[in-house]
Amino acid sequence: MKKSIFLLSSSSVHGHGFLEYNKPDIEKFLKGVTTPILFVPFAAGKDEWDGYTSKVRAFFTTIGMKVKGIHTVSEEKMFTDHEVIFIGGGNTFRLLNELQQRGLLPRIREAVMSGKMAYMGSSAGTNMATLSIKTTNDMPIIYPAGGFDALNLFPYQINPHYLDADPTSSHMGETRAQRISEFHQENDTPVFGLREGSYILISPDCASTGKMFIGRKAGARVFLKGKPAFEAPTDVEFSLSELEAAR
Amino acid sequence: MKKSIFLLSSSSVHGHGFLEYNKPDIEKFLKGVTTPILFVPFAAGKDEWDGYTSKVRAFFTTIGMKVKGIHTVSEEKMFTDHEVIFIGGGNTFRLLNELQQRGLLPRIREAVMSGKMAYMGSSAGTNMATLSIKTTNDMPIIYPAGGFDALNLFPYQINPHYLDADPTSSHMGETRAQRISEFHQENDTPVFGLREGSYILISPDCASTGKMFIGRKAGARVFLKGKPAFEAPTDVEFSLSELEAAR
Repeated sequence: MKKSIFLLSSSSVHGHGFLEYNKPDIEKFLKGVTTPILFVPFAAGKDEWDGYTSKVRAFFTTIGMKVKGIHTVSEEKMFTDHEVIFIGGGNTFRLLNELQQRGLLPRIREAVMSGKMAYMGSSAGTNMATLSIKTTNDMPIIYPAGGFDALNLFPYQINPHYLDADPTSSHMGETRAQRISEFHQENDTPVFGLREGSYILISPDCASTGKMFIGRKAGARVFLKGKPAFEAPTDVEFSLSELEAAR
Repeated sequence: MKKSIFLLSSSSVHGHGFLEYNKPDIEKFLKGVTTPILFVPFAAGKDEWDGYTSKVRAFFTTIGMKVKGIHTVSEEKMFTDHEVIFIGGGNTFRLLNELQQRGLLPRIREAVMSGKMAYMGSSAGTNMATLSIKTTNDMPIIYPAGGFDALNLFPYQINPHYLDADPTSSHMGETRAQRISEFHQENDTPVFGLREGSYILISPDCASTGKMFIGRKAGARVFLKGKPAFEAPTDVEFSLSELEAAR
């Protein structure tokens, strides 16, 4: 499969600069791309869009690529002049709200699912590629009047920045696994807890094949409703149905 | 002032049983109450409501009080036969959604603001007493179609289970203070970061007087838009405007 959807858990990994940790993975994903990357900074506050775009541009310059902020591109050029859209991290509720207000969700989905554009996301941008934002870690600082549905490029849920429970903690707030089990009290969709540094690669036909590829050794934890959680295979293509059949 | 709204950061504190840590505070708050407490278990999953109510009842039995689950009480008796309503913790989105669906938000607000009922909340139940659920820590597992507005008994925001940043952490997810500063990029309301073990006591006239009382030494961090955060006074009555005037 041509893996055209690339979802990072986070843009930063401890001890590494912005996007640096995943630089080889990003270069590999973007190989052959000649147009500027269409960057979506809407997970940040409005007055940060330009600064955020500059920060992203500074990184991509190091791998010889250009970047345009979607807020500076005309409607008619967004989906014709760019081979790759990259939605960055920040607050998922703010991001979803802005995409809803601008009517961009169906247009992005169509561009990626038809194969016209590749999709790259990190953190909030990774949540946005899934079925819904219901497994974000962010604070609900804005009410998205159009609901919690996201782009549904990846037919499951992802919890980015996934953190294993700290057995030495005295904090009584829910662990990440407990929050995901609350999600499964109300929803049936499988959830991938993607640890910082890891990524998922898929193609638009993932909805029918279920095929995906998880890279980087931090890996991911898989949560299926009503079953014990388990580790996802890394660095090998697999589908949930194959995993289930093999168990 | 007669402090009739009692908001706990959490129902559990490390090393203590359910509600045990705040038992003396709870006993003091409930002094003189003779009717059963009306308990709202809606932050838990539907199949847990009875079990959750039993757990709460077990605690209140130790201080000689009865408990009724709101889901077992007829509509007409909810607000006539109970001097105290207690909304427990769990998932704030699920809680808000259930209260919206049942049309209970205006009825609870009216009962408390008119002085007919006292209000006790912990965790999600504390979020519910504030202006909105926009500073919850919970996962958005359910979309509340009626928006994020809560009961507005307390005219500010509370972030329960408030956690100071851990300088030794290598996790790159946002700290709690960063999340609250994102809230302030989009909203103006002051936020109280209430540490586990602490509580806020107010009366329905807090909206006009601003007077409140924060108990227990873990205390609270106060976040005002565009200003450096500071520690709230504890064990003394104060208002934000007094604090601001004294600085």
